[in-house]
Amino acid sequence: MDNFSFYSPTYFEFGREAEKKTGELIRRFGGSKVLLHYGGGSIKKNGVYGKVIAALTSADIKFTELGGVVPNPRSSLVREGIDIARSEGVDLILAVGGGSVIDSAKAIAAGVKYDGDFIDFYRGKAKIEDALPVGTVLTIAAAGSEGSPNAVITDEETGKKKGARSDHIRPKFSVMNPEFTLTLPPYQTAAGATDIFIHVCERYFSNTPEVVITDRLCESVMKTIIYETPRVLRDPDNYGARANIMWAGMIAHNNICGVGREQDWGSHHMEHELSALYDVTHGAGLAVIVPAWMRYVMERHPEKFVPFATEVWGVPLDMINPIETAMIGIERFEGFLKQIGMPSKFSEIGARKEDIPKMVDKLFAGSETEGNYVKLSKEDVTKIYESVADV
Amino acid sequence: MDNFSFYSPTYFEFGREAEKKTGELIRRFGGSKVLLHYGGGSIKKNGVYGKVIAALTSADIKFTELGGVVPNPRSSLVREGIDIARSEGVDLILAVGGGSVIDSAKAIAAGVKYDGDFIDFYRGKAKIEDALPVGTVLTIAAAGSEGSPNAVITDEETGKKKGARSDHIRPKFSVMNPEFTLTLPPYQTAAGATDIFIHVCERYFSNTPEVVITDRLCESVMKTIIYETPRVLRDPDNYGARANIMWAGMIAHNNICGVGREQDWGSHHMEHELSALYDVTHGAGLAVIVPAWMRYVMERHPEKFVPFATEVWGVPLDMINPIETAMIGIERFEGFLKQIGMPSKFSEIGARKEDIPKMVDKLFAGSETEGNYVKLSKEDVTKIYESVADV
Repeated sequence: MDNFSFYSPTYFEFGREAEKKTGELIRRFGGSKVLLHYGGGSIKKNGVYGKVIAALTSADIKFTELGGVVPNPRSSLVREGIDIARSEGVDLILAVGGGSVIDSAKAIAAGVKYDGDFIDFYRGKAKIEDALPVGTVLTIAAAGSEGSPNAVITDEETGKKKGARSDHIRPKFSVMNPEFTLTLPPYQTAAGATDIFIHVCERYFSNTPEVVITDRLCESVMKTIIYETPRVLRDPDNYGARANIMWAGMIAHNNICGVGREQDWGSHHMEHELSALYDVTHGAGLAVIVPAWMRYVMERHPEKFVPFATEVWGVPLDMINPIETAMIGIERFEGFLKQIGMPSKFSEIGARKEDIPKMVDKLFAGSETEGNYVKLSKEDVTKIYESVADV
Repeated sequence: MDNFSFYSPTYFEFGREAEKKTGELIRRFGGSKVLLHYGGGSIKKNGVYGKVIAALTSADIKFTELGGVVPNPRSSLVREGIDIARSEGVDLILAVGGGSVIDSAKAIAAGVKYDGDFIDFYRGKAKIEDALPVGTVLTIAAAGSEGSPNAVITDEETGKKKGARSDHIRPKFSVMNPEFTLTLPPYQTAAGATDIFIHVCERYFSNTPEVVITDRLCESVMKTIIYETPRVLRDPDNYGARANIMWAGMIAHNNICGVGREQDWGSHHMEHELSALYDVTHGAGLAVIVPAWMRYVMERHPEKFVPFATEVWGVPLDMINPIETAMIGIERFEGFLKQIGMPSKFSEIGARKEDIPKMVDKLFAGSETEGNYVKLSKEDVTKIYESVADV
């Protein structure tokens, strides 16, 4: 186990009607006038918007609004949010939505406190040293941004999807009402579950020895997703299943599953190139990339794929031929993704084989290798992309 | 899943030489003059004391000292600590030790900010509304107090061991260097592991439906303890195994394994009567009580004992006779406790059958039932005590 720090100070209010506490939580964390940040207006259709406004009003919280966040959130809207927050004297950014809205809110919060262009944080030119407090009301179980210090933004000038990370932008509080996810369409539900599962994969596939507790925690989250996702697709109103998926999404990404170990994240970076180019849903892009990554790296480095098969998927261990055990685990995962309606090839997400060289060039701008479990070269990544582009 | 709040804002610095950050962490959380609180002096023999003093000195932190905390920490020493902290103008309590030292430090921290006698918090006469910040340097993996809002104190006037709970006394930071546990004797190591395992049992045995994610997380901790404890007893210098047990101890008790569900805690309360009377090591007392509790309640309410057997202990499920499966799980647990050198009956911990009525009376002073998985009457608890007193 490697040395580590772990700090996850977000206050979580979880359950039915949790949003009623929103105003009180804003006050607790020093807010009195908030920027209410959201996406394309689905929260107005499903009633979430009205419930949040009611909670703000009853606690006498003033607010100004900025909607319009799109999946893979854009730098231009972040700049607009920074301007509004400054001119209106906002003291807390309240994100009402999923990962994209929360990430956009985090970028605004950091940008307000920075003299230069906020995009510097995403181009490695500046470090986040301060930010307005961020609160969230979560409406999609997927990204885990409600409990993480990370925020991913699409830099419209370069076309790159890039992340920043700082404890300053970690939400002070997150309101998590699983009822808000009952109306999510099956495809978004499954893509969210896939994202959660793979947040854990990025931590599970590690070369660090003696990380038994985090291995077992990772498996907990994966087994929960495997159990609950088909249940919720069969019965979208299943509150218990929705609740387990929602809380698993937080645990998958606040890093309790990742401390003390080298992490991979190569698949996420490969997927970011896909979603920057084609605006594909992140979880769906991961469903295409990760099994291809698994098949490619397993042959070189099967060690961690064996417990992935036995502990996560219940495959009996064949010690005479553990590669066979590992391969069955990958096949089970592929079968699961198919079962829940996720894509498995470029053509299903509108990606094109001829763009591969461009994606690879962008991915390797400034780095020699990708990932850590197996360090991948340009050629490796090209082959992984190609393996799902041809079919 | 029940509605819940989860808030675990402790900053954890984990790993080799983590104690070097102690001074910096004290400054970060507003301390400049600390009360250094510890136990019977083992930290002076094993070098931990010197390392902590060096870290304080190098960060120019002033300190005053109070040693002498005993297992099942006493109210009189807490009062002494409150007086010293006040007269010396201490602004942070630094606990260097295990659960008893940390719990004593938490009580001092709350007492300093309270006009009345601190014991009011433990007699249900007052609520903790404020406290000095608490930091910890952990030396024993067991109680989980390094990441919890709980503190248990022996009230010397009543002879009762009682708990208080408040986010105000949750440590601001905890320094966790597994090397500090390498010199722990086997009995203390095993008792600590037992305590960790049972902190999770108290949460696992629950009637709340649809808590799949926390069920799986509980199993992660239990499986880690089952795997690592025999390794560390065989090879006390195994850093990796010590590290996994230490981090599992935090996860077992910061309530990430317990949110969204009714918890039991009847066994803990039964054990508190034992350790208040005989000063038995908490984990060893639990090793006597919990299997007896399991055998007693399983017959009435086997449901949760079946996954305990199959998921935690790998017992094959017999759906024709699931009680048999459940019983084999309990037997495996008893076998494990024996294997790691834990006691299983009163005579091994110096407890006496004739004291049972006294313990039962104290336990039920002010309550009608104990525990939640099965609500136990005085008669039930008497039978549980008797089942391990006769043998």
